[in-house]
Parts: sequence; structure tokens; C-alpha cells
Amino acid sequence: MKNYIQATEWNIIEEGFDPHLNKISESIFSIGNGRMGQRANFEESYSGESLQGNYVAGVYYPDKTRVGWWKNGYPEYFAKVLNAANWIGLELKFDGELLDLNTCKVSDFKRVLNMKEGYLERSFTAELLSGKKVSVVSKRFCSIADDEIAALHYSLVPLNFSGKLEICSFTDGDVKNQDSNYDEKFWEEVARSQQGPVSYLTLRTKKTAFEVCTAVQSSVFKNDKAQNLQGAAEIRDKYVAQLAVLELVQNDRVDIYKIAANLSSMNYATTELQQAAQQAIARACAKGFEVLLQQQQQAWENKWKESDILIEGDVAAQQAIRFNIFQLNQTYTGKDARLNIGPKGFTGEKYGGSTYWDTEAYCIPFYLSTAPAEVAKNLLVYRYKQLDKAIENAQKLGFKNGAALYPMVTMNGEECHNEWEITFEEIHRNGAIAFAIFNYIRYTGDESYLQQYGLEVLIGIARFWKQRVNWSADKNKYVMLGVTGPNEYENNINNNWYTNTLAAWCLNYTIEAADLVKTLAPQEYARITEKTKLDTAKEFEDWKNIASQMYYPYDEQEGVFLQQDGYMDKEQVLVKDLPASERPLNQKWSWDRILRSCFIKQADVLQGMYFFEDDYDLETLRRNFNFYESRTVHESSLSPCVHSILAAKLSDEQKAYEFYLRTARLDLDDYNNDTEDGLHITSMAGTWMSIVEGFAGMRVRNGKLKFSPFVPKQWKSFSFNLNFRGTTLRVKITATEISITNHSAQALEIQVFDRYYEVAQGEQSITYQLCV
Amino acid sequence: MKNYIQATEWNIIEEGFDPHLNKISESIFSIGNGRMGQRANFEESYSGESLQGNYVAGVYYPDKTRVGWWKNGYPEYFAKVLNAANWIGLELKFDGELLDLNTCKVSDFKRVLNMKEGYLERSFTAELLSGKKVSVVSKRFCSIADDEIAALHYSLVPLNFSGKLEICSFTDGDVKNQDSNYDEKFWEEVARSQQGPVSYLTLRTKKTAFEVCTAVQSSVFKNDKAQNLQGAAEIRDKYVAQLAVLELVQNDRVDIYKIAANLSSMNYATTELQQAAQQAIARACAKGFEVLLQQQQQAWENKWKESDILIEGDVAAQQAIRFNIFQLNQTYTGKDARLNIGPKGFTGEKYGGSTYWDTEAYCIPFYLSTAPAEVAKNLLVYRYKQLDKAIENAQKLGFKNGAALYPMVTMNGEECHNEWEITFEEIHRNGAIAFAIFNYIRYTGDESYLQQYGLEVLIGIARFWKQRVNWSADKNKYVMLGVTGPNEYENNINNNWYTNTLAAWCLNYTIEAADLVKTLAPQEYARITEKTKLDTAKEFEDWKNIASQMYYPYDEQEGVFLQQDGYMDKEQVLVKDLPASERPLNQKWSWDRILRSCFIKQADVLQGMYFFEDDYDLETLRRNFNFYESRTVHESSLSPCVHSILAAKLSDEQKAYEFYLRTARLDLDDYNNDTEDGLHITSMAGTWMSIVEGFAGMRVRNGKLKFSPFVPKQWKSFSFNLNFRGTTLRVKITATEISITNHSAQALEIQVFDRYYEVAQGEQSITYQLCV
Repeated sequence: MKNYIQATEWNIIEEGFDPHLNKISESIFSIGNGRMGQRANFEESYSGESLQGNYVAGVYYPDKTRVGWWKNGYPEYFAKVLNAANWIGLELKFDGELLDLNTCKVSDFKRVLNMKEGYLERSFTAELLSGKKVSVVSKRFCSIADDEIAALHYSLVPLNFSGKLEICSFTDGDVKNQDSNYDEKFWEEVARSQQGPVSYLTLRTKKTAFEVCTAVQSSVFKNDKAQNLQGAAEIRDKYVAQLAVLELVQNDRVDIYKIAANLSSMNYATTELQQAAQQAIARACAKGFEVLLQQQQQAWENKWKESDILIEGDVAAQQAIRFNIFQLNQTYTGKDARLNIGPKGFTGEKYGGSTYWDTEAYCIPFYLSTAPAEVAKNLLVYRYKQLDKAIENAQKLGFKNGAALYPMVTMNGEECHNEWEITFEEIHRNGAIAFAIFNYIRYTGDESYLQQYGLEVLIGIARFWKQRVNWSADKNKYVMLGVTGPNEYENNINNNWYTNTLAAWCLNYTIEAADLVKTLAPQEYARITEKTKLDTAKEFEDWKNIASQMYYPYDEQEGVFLQQDGYMDKEQVLVKDLPASERPLNQKWSWDRILRSCFIKQADVLQGMYFFEDDYDLETLRRNFNFYESRTVHESSLSPCVHSILAAKLSDEQKAYEFYLRTARLDLDDYNNDTEDGLHITSMAGTWMSIVEGFAGMRVRNGKLKFSPFVPKQWKSFSFNLNFRGTTLRVKITATEISITNHSAQALEIQVFDRYYEVAQGEQSITYQLCV
Repeated sequence: MKNYIQATEWNIIEEGFDPHLNKISESIFSIGNGRMGQRANFEESYSGESLQGNYVAGVYYPDKTRVGWWKNGYPEYFAKVLNAANWIGLELKFDGELLDLNTCKVSDFKRVLNMKEGYLERSFTAELLSGKKVSVVSKRFCSIADDEIAALHYSLVPLNFSGKLEICSFTDGDVKNQDSNYDEKFWEEVARSQQGPVSYLTLRTKKTAFEVCTAVQSSVFKNDKAQNLQGAAEIRDKYVAQLAVLELVQNDRVDIYKIAANLSSMNYATTELQQAAQQAIARACAKGFEVLLQQQQQAWENKWKESDILIEGDVAAQQAIRFNIFQLNQTYTGKDARLNIGPKGFTGEKYGGSTYWDTEAYCIPFYLSTAPAEVAKNLLVYRYKQLDKAIENAQKLGFKNGAALYPMVTMNGEECHNEWEITFEEIHRNGAIAFAIFNYIRYTGDESYLQQYGLEVLIGIARFWKQRVNWSADKNKYVMLGVTGPNEYENNINNNWYTNTLAAWCLNYTIEAADLVKTLAPQEYARITEKTKLDTAKEFEDWKNIASQMYYPYDEQEGVFLQQDGYMDKEQVLVKDLPASERPLNQKWSWDRILRSCFIKQADVLQGMYFFEDDYDLETLRRNFNFYESRTVHESSLSPCVHSILAAKLSDEQKAYEFYLRTARLDLDDYNNDTEDGLHITSMAGTWMSIVEGFAGMRVRNGKLKFSPFVPKQWKSFSFNLNFRGTTLRVKITATEISITNHSAQALEIQVFDRYYEVAQGEQSITYQLCV
């Protein structure tokens, strides 16, 4: 855990330059706009430790699978998030001496991520080996107002010398992925050219043949006077540059602007790509840096109106929730149904792929509440479109008859992950995808989704579970063997309570959904049963039978659901008795030791009780929470938010708050020592959930919004917006009062604890008693 | 399963050329001499499918580990068996047209492995595209009389044409391992030169810096007249060649000889390597090919005297057992304590490393009986020398206080394997290493081995088990979680009966061994307890306690030991009901499907009952045998022999014979569709065990040999030799009689079934009743 980020309400601030923290800061200060994004790498040369990262949404490379020992069923490749051309490059030489913070004396270093206005700023003074001092201020952003555009302004002043400055402003596509399996580069050059002040570089990915054109207009000013640029001396593949040579007098001011367009063949014919980039650059340059920045500020103002959470009385918490919301909005805007939410967004390569069960289990609730309904729907439809691939994937593993197993990681519907214990066994993802359909309909009331898309997905999933269980003569129940639950610190276990619970629920819900479609849209029902060749009598009976006779491990003595068979054979040690020097376990212990210990990465029994909370009374929840919480090390970023929500439900406000801080500041404080790889984007939605579902106790039941709020004692109040069935609400919660502003014409019935209130258009305050 | 090898008593014969079988034949017809060996690649050019393989014992390359996802504790590298310089190369051009069996019409193709005399012969007629016909006979061997030397004779006749023949006789070190992790070549050139008729090529392995000098003298005769040779036109790295150009008249006879020396820096200072090779070549060439071959024949005659098994009445069985003994003797001679028995010997690269638990569990019994006692002892001392590395390996995984975990695969004592479920969890190997010490002493009576070497190893192993178990409050027993047994079709299971049984046995045996050393050699005992810092009171008590309270899964209903917790939850299907189209499972089923099925790769419960057979009555054995046998697919080459021995013990002679054939002809008939990767060398010792321990029922109990023989009804008789405590015995078994010839002066008391006989020097026949 680190603690170097200054807490302010709207800004993330790092002061002083520590090279050891650089890769962490590169992650934290990342910028993006849903279409492209980049790590907070320096514009100028830097020979120290850095993870270079520029990313273009949806553009991936199928990197040939690398494993130690091949197992039947492994995917042929892993779809990697691609490190794309670096357009921010500035090589700066003062009388031939390179500006490189790794070899300079650096003072007054400050890095600021301005979340309110959506830009990254950095300033410092560098003293070169020669004694020359330069002060620098740089500012850049990826525009959410025009998501093909990014821009930077780099300004410098020679403080104590006069001399020659050579500026090389370049775009470098000769980049690698750090996680390349065979040290291969994934891009090849299509074209590069220089047209007046604009450089064009078009690259194509090997195998997948995505093309990306990066066009950059560079301009340089000395004391506000435009300077000449010429093509660079260095000519090499996948690299374009422009050079300016300036004679500087001490205290002259140099301003460098780069306005970039990043366009991909996802959105243009390859033949039109460069022309489209030319138009984009022309459009952006006509406005210029300052206007583009104003539009960025305006666009972010609108974003914040939709999704901000305001916390009074706790700056660290305020900063943290905004950071999470900011990064989510930088990653996914919901405009494009072909995209999804990669676990690292545009902040790193690690894990690859763009779609995990994180989307369904954590992100959809966030987008349901903070964005138009199409956004969450797009995320669901994404899976519908990949149903055929999921059926293929299941076939590869020996399943039949339309059984579907969605991939653990994917870009295009095909499985990428290549650990057997994950790829083949972490099958609970199928359940989360079904649950998301249920959750979407519960929130939106959009039952027609079932007939359009949902039912077919559910049928594929139900068929999978049917074939995946087997009858145990020994237990006289259906069992599910050889699975890995969300707690990945157990592999290849039998009867994971969470997976068994989800599977049984899926089977029942599919029948229920089928009945609903049959009633509401009989023609659609006929179409679907025909298309899926559903033997309704036989298959429904099988499903009911399995669901009703599923085995659930349970420990009588502790009165808790057992995470898996044999869990109580482990030595029962509590996390509080683990020496700090041994954590995080995944960095300190060998894998086998982790596996045979009782320690839990994320508590899947609690995840299940969170999904199906209405099925369990508070006492049952409390017993399970106490048991599993004390054994959970939260080394998954997805873990703390669920604990926060459940602690809130159990009225353990202190614990709820602690877990909130842990999820909210996971990356800001680098809890798990891995922020340098990139941010934990998908878990950021969990942070939002901790506040809205945890502290505000928001639920949707019987088509109505319900709140069971409290305010952590460290806070005065918190407020947030919600989209719900066509209305937009502003909710503010203080220690004694919940006030709801209804921005729509339609009145809403809302439940607060056990009372119902009619909330008409306008503001309405509801006084409530703290319920402890 | 294939069936193309002709059955003869002493020869392995392939007739007719089928390119699809070529890689299988390359494995089967491999030759070696314990110091070097090679696959049966063609001497002349071949553009078809082939796995090129030349190997030098003990020379390895630490290939950087390749995994999909790194886990803590993984080894940094995998020690690969190296494909070394190819010295047999002959490029033959007739009027510029290359002889290449892949592009010719081939007739009269015959490949013979002459096991009696120890050479490989091949003959064929090739019709080139031009219509030219050539007949060829080639013969080659790796000398066991002079194990630095190998030789070949390649003879050809142009059948229907006259013309120019260009012969390029080359040594090519520019070779790759097919299993190279990063497509890297492992050799670099040190030197190459041509001195008169001899070419020298010295190569060094990267990282490990082993050097190997390959010296080859080529000579060419036309109609018995020596021809001139000159340095080859092609000059390139790691390649030397000599060229002869001949004008041939139809029916001329051309004889090419290559005599090669392969010397490594294992045995010579690098500065002396080439000179030593020069001397070796001079020594060999002074004899010439025919004398070398005679010496080879003589040396093999002696080998066969020691280790032959003669079977009357069943040619396929006779051929098979000789093939197994032949390949074992080609792989390991026991002369060099630094060497061990790689799973593929000199016949392929697969698996890498040279030492697996196969050595202790399968090979040691073979060498104990068929070679001088030092040979088996060398194999044990090999592990003693690696004890420090085993302690380091355990430390890496979090074990302390001198606990030792021997590696799953190694060349130098360091772990190589990189699958967590094997490397970290297949820990039963530790038990087999302890058992081999027990077995060696039981067979030889050499108790001093304990004080010299054995006890230290046992203490390290006992300490490992002590730390690897944990107390289960739930079961009120010690349990062992997260292991993989010899049945690798289960991973990360709890309470593998075999591993628990072995562990408890190790703990008890270590105490017993310590007591023995204390009694026999108190000073040595003091030295060892001092060196190992053994707290005898505390540690012995712990060990006893664990051994006496170990948990063993058991199924009451079936009355069988359970392979692991939860095994009876699986769907219980029998192998007989598996469609042939789905086998072998490891090629037809996805890995997760294999894992959750009840099917067994090799039955570890039976392996345990084989090790500790005196602890179980026949009825218990029968129940377990019937239960596990019907669920075992024998997709480990190590599986059938144990089943054969146990079936013999259960007097199921038919089954014993079937399993014998399966183990004996595993490679000859390519049962598991993987012979092309190389032969299953270590399991070949199991074949020998099937006959000697199975059919002859040989055991050593209370320091005495015991037999409980029968003859499979397909055979008339079988006979074999045994070394036992300084005596050499010849044992012949017919349907009614066992006759034993004692070649030593000392009389031996021998048990046959339940009667004892005194066998004095000379031959003695014992008539016995068949015991059914």
C-alpha cells in the first residue's frame, strides 16, 4: 500500500518526482474517452522505468497461445489489448543535450489529473547535467466531445541559459506489447506521410488486419511566434516526425501543440481512413487547443451531472469515488455495441481481452443507474451476438445440443484464457450473464428483452448446466465437480456453493422466462423454441429436477454455507493472524500454499448471498458474513465492494465504510501492489455500488426503488443521481433525512426502509429514523 | 494402435515404406550406448516428416520457462534434453538429382533393428523422378564396447544407369530442439576443422557451456577402391562436410563409411576435447567398421547373458521383452553416477529432464536384478547428491527446517517442471525416493547405505511430510490437501490415498532407519543428527503421531480404499463402456472432462498396494483391483505393468498376460498414439517386472528370494537371470517346474510358494504344483 496521492475533491495530485512510483502514476493519471486512451507517459524522452501504453478501443491482436504444456481444449490464441502508436512523443535537445527526467535533477514536479475538466497536467523544473535549467508545463486530454481527437500543449522556458533547442515531435508505431507471448511486434506499416504540418501514420495489425491511422499536427511557438517545422532526419519504419530548431534566449517561452486524430477501421473503410483522419485533424485544428479544451470541460460537466456522487465532510472519500466514476466514464461510454469494458480499460495491457464476467456482475448496475438504458442493454446484446461462439466453445469441451459456455475472456466471443482451471472450470461466468439479464429487466422493466434476445441466451446457459452436473449416487443429489469459483484461490474443487446456487437459479429462471415469453409473445416463443430446437417438456422437466435436487455444501457446526466440499478440512486461520510481511499472499506465498490454505481471494458464498439476498434472513447472512469475512484477503479488486454492501445491510456501518475506502482507493493507494500494471477499471463500478447499494441501500423490488440509507459517521452527507425507468432522480442523504428530487413529470412511488412515499416532480424530503 | 512391426525373436522388422509411420519407426529403431544415442533418421536427405534426434548423455540446456500465467514458485527454466550434432548426414546426388525417399518411388524397403548384435540396418530400392534406380543398404550402431564411438556403413548400387554421383558427407550442428520454448537454437560453434579425412565440429551449449566435439572420418570406395574426398563447397556455421565425386557405371558398388567420435566436456577438459576426439577416432579407425561391429556383437552377447529373458512358444512376447531390455541397456549402463534414465532415453526430446520418479519406482528393480549392485546404488546416490537442491526447492515453496522436496523433473537437482498441479502437488515422488532406499536395502542387504547416504535423505523427506499435512478438526485426523497422485487425471485433490499411505510409511521408516543407524553405527548417527540438527525426541514424536493418525479415504459400500476424497461423487462408468472412438481420452476429451470423469490414467491405489503388498490380504487386494482396474485407461505407460503383477498375484493369469503384452508392446504397437515422440524407456523396466515379479512372482522377503511362478498358457517356458547378493542365478519356469542354476559358490535358500529349498552351486530343478 502506498500513500503519496494528495486528497482533494476534484483533482488527483502527485507532488515531487519519485521514479519508483512512476509506473503506478502512469496508471493512475491515465486519460481516455471510450474510443482511445493512454497511460500518463511523459511526452519528452524518459530512460527510466515506464510502461508505454496507447490504446484504441476494439483493436486487438490474436497472440498465439503460450503455455507450458498443452491441454486439450485450450484456445489457439489470446486476444491482446494492443499497445498502439505513441503520438505524444517529443524529443527535446538543448545544445544537443537530451531532456530526460531519469538523468536530470528534477524539482517542483507536480502531476495533476483534473477530473472535473478531464485533462492531465504536469509541471516541473529540470536541471540537466550541464547545469541548464528548464521549466516545463504540459497539459493533455482525449476529447470526449469529439472522441477521435486528442491534444497536448507542452510549454517550456529556459531558466538560466540561452542556446539551441532541437524539437523532434514524433509519432512512433514501432511499439511492442510488454505481454507479447513471443516477443513479436503486432503492427505493420501501411503508410506514412507528411502533408504540410500534419504527419500521417497508418498501421495494420497482423492477422486481424485492423487499421489505425494516427494523424498529428504539430506546431511550435517561440514567445507566441510560430516557428518552422520540417520533416525529421530519422527515417524509419512505423515512425514519422517533424523537427524544429530554435535559438533560445534565457526566459524565452516555447509552446508546442500536438493535435492528434486516431481513427480505426472499426469505423471507416480502410480506403477512406487517411482521408477521414485528415478531415478530423482539420476539424480539430480549426478549433485549436484552447477551444478543444473548453469543449472537453463542457462535456465533462455534462458527464458529472449524470454520474457524480457528492460527499460532504470527507475529502479522501470524495476524491476516491470521483476517481472511480471518472475512470469508468473514460473507459466506456456505451455508444458502440461492439465494445465492452476491459479490466484495465485504457490503462494497461494486463489480462488482455475486453470482456470478463466483471461486466455483468459489477458494471451493468453502474451503467443502469447512471446512463441511458441503451448503454446497459448494449452490454447485454453484446453477449447475445456472441451466443453462437459460446455454443461452439462448449462443443469444443464436449458439450452438445446447443449448450453454451461463454468465454472467461474475450474480444470477439472466442475464448482466450489459457489456464485450464480458469478457462474450463471458472464456469460461474455463465451464471453472471444470466443474472445480468434478470437484473436488467428487474431494473428497467423491459420484459421484451427476453423475447428479443434474452431467452435464447438463457436456454444455451441452462443446457450447459444440465450437462455440467452429474448425479452422485453417494450424495443422492446432483453435484458439480471440477470447478473454480470467483474465489480463484481454490482450483478444481467440487460443489462450489456459489456455482451450484447460480446454476440452480439459472435453470429455474430460464423456465420462468420461457413461460413469460410464451404468455406475452407466443409467436416469438414459437420462433425461439423452433430455432433452439427446445424440447420444452423434456428439457424443462430435467432442469426443474436438477434445480430441486442440487447439492449445497453446508457446515452444521458453524451454520454456514460451505464454499466447497472439504473446506473445513483446512487449517482454520483468520486473516487477522496473518503477518503483514506475508501479504499479499499472491506475491509472498507459493501457489500450492495459497491453494491449500483457508484464505479466500474473494468470498464467493457472499457474492451469491449478495445476488440472491432475498432468499436469506439477516441472521444467516450475518453468520456467513462473519465466517467468510474473517478468512478473506481481498486480493481480488472485485472483493471489497460486496463486503461493503453486505456490511451495510447488516448495519455494520464501520465495516461498510472501511470496505468502501478499500475499494474506492484500491488504485490510488495501490493496496494490492499491482497498480503499475494498470487500473482495476471494472471493480470501480463496485465502488459506486458500495455507496448506492451499500450506504444508500438502493434496491429495485417489484418495479419500485427502495432505499435503506445511512451516512458513514465520517461524512456529513452524500448525494447522487439515478436514472430509473425514464425518470432522473437526485438523491441526497444526511444522517436523518433523505431528499429526492424528481426531474421528470411522472411521479414515482419510492420505499424508504419499510414506508412508501410518492415522489412527484420537484424536490421532496423524507425524514427517516436511523435504523440500527 | 498400430500393428506393422513383424514379430521375430531377435529382430524388429519393418517392411515397406510408409511415410506416415516414419516418425514412429524413427523412435522404435533408435540406437544408443548409454553415452550417446540417436533416432533412426535416414542418412540420406529426407524432405518428409521426421524428428531429427541425436543426443549426448548429461548434456542439457536450461530453456527459459514458458507458461501462460506465472505462479509463485515456478522454476526459472526447464532443463531440456538437447538435440545434438547430426553426424550421419549423407547428401547424395545422381547427375545432380537428390536421393530423397520422400520424392522417389521406394520399393523393397526394409528396416531391421538387430537386438542380438546391436545394430540398425536398412535397405531399399529407390527410383528417382528421372527413372534412375539405386539400391541401398545401410548399417549403423553406437558402440557399447567403446562408448565414445559410433559407425555407419552405407552401400549403394546404380541399377539401371551410369552417371555422376556426388557424395556430401556432413556433420551438421545447426540443429534445433522441436520443444524449444522460444524457437531458440541451443548450440553455438566453438571450432570446426578438417584434418585429412577427419572433420571436427566442436559446439558449446548456451548458458550451461557444455562442449561436445564430434569427429567423423568419412571414406568412400568404388568397387572396393578408395576414392578421394575434399572439403565441401558449402561453408557455414556449425557445419562441416567432405565431398566425393564419382563417375559410376551401372552396377558399380559404392561403399561409404563414417566412423564418429562424440566426446563431451562431462569427461574431458574443454582444452583437451578435440585432441581426445582425435585419439578416439584414431583408435576406432585403426580397427575399422567390421572389427568395431564384431566388438559390438561381442559386447551385446555379454549384455544378453546378464539380462535376457527367454520365452519359448510366443514370438511376439519374446520380441517385446527383448525390445524393452535392449532399449533399457541402450539408455543406461550405470557406469556414470551423474547420469540417470530420461523418460525418452535417446529416442526423443519430449518431457525433457533426465530424472523422474520412474527411476525409483520402476527402473531400480530392473537394475538391482540385472546389473552389478553399484548400478542401482549409483541411482540412489544421485538423489543423495541432490539433497541440498531438494531442500532449496522445498524452501522456495515455504517449507522450513531442512524439509526436502525432490523435483518432479530434473537434470541437476533443480526443479524444471512448470505446471503447478504437477510441480507443486505431485509430491508422491518424495515417497518413491524413500521407498527405493528401502527396496535397495531389502534386495541387497546393504544396511550401511543408510548411514552413508540414506538416512539424511529420509530425514529431509520426513520433515517435508510433517509440514505438508495438517490437522483436520472436521475429520479428527491428519489430512493432506491439494495433491496430485500418480493418477494425473486428477489434479489438486484432497487425501490421495496413495500419497497419504506413502507419507505415513516414510515417517515410520525414517524412525526405523534412524534406530538402525543408531544401533549399527552410533558415531555416524551422531554425525547425521548433528548435521541435520535433528531434534530426535520432538521430531520422532511428531512423525509417529502423524503416521498413526493419518486419514485414509475408504468406501464402505465397495470395501475399497478411495483414491481421494469425493471420488464416489463421480459418475461411475466403466472403461469397457467407453466407445473406442473416444480413446485415448487425452487426445479426444477436453482436460476438464477428463478431470471430472472417474477414469484413471494409472491407478495409484493399486500402485500403493503393490509397494506395500504385505499389508493387505488377497481379498482386499482383489476388491480394489476389480474396482480400479475397470476404471483405468492406462494412458500412462507406467500403468499396465503394476496391473500385470497384481493380476498375477491374484492368479488371474489371463489378465496378467494381457497387461504384460500391453506394457511390452506399448511402443512396438504404438498403443497410446505417441511413440513418434520417442519410446517410453522408463516403463520398459516395468515390462521386465511384469515377467519377473508377475509371472515368476519373485520377491525378496527376510533377505531371501521367493518365487510364486506360473507360465502364461500361451508360453511353453520362460527363463531369466538374476543377480542377488553376490550370486548369479538362472531361473527357468515351465508349467510344472522351476529350475534354478546357481552360478556362484555360495548356496542360497530359496522359497517357492510356501516351501524352502537350498540351492547349491549348479543347476537344481524344483517341481511345483500350479497354485490356482
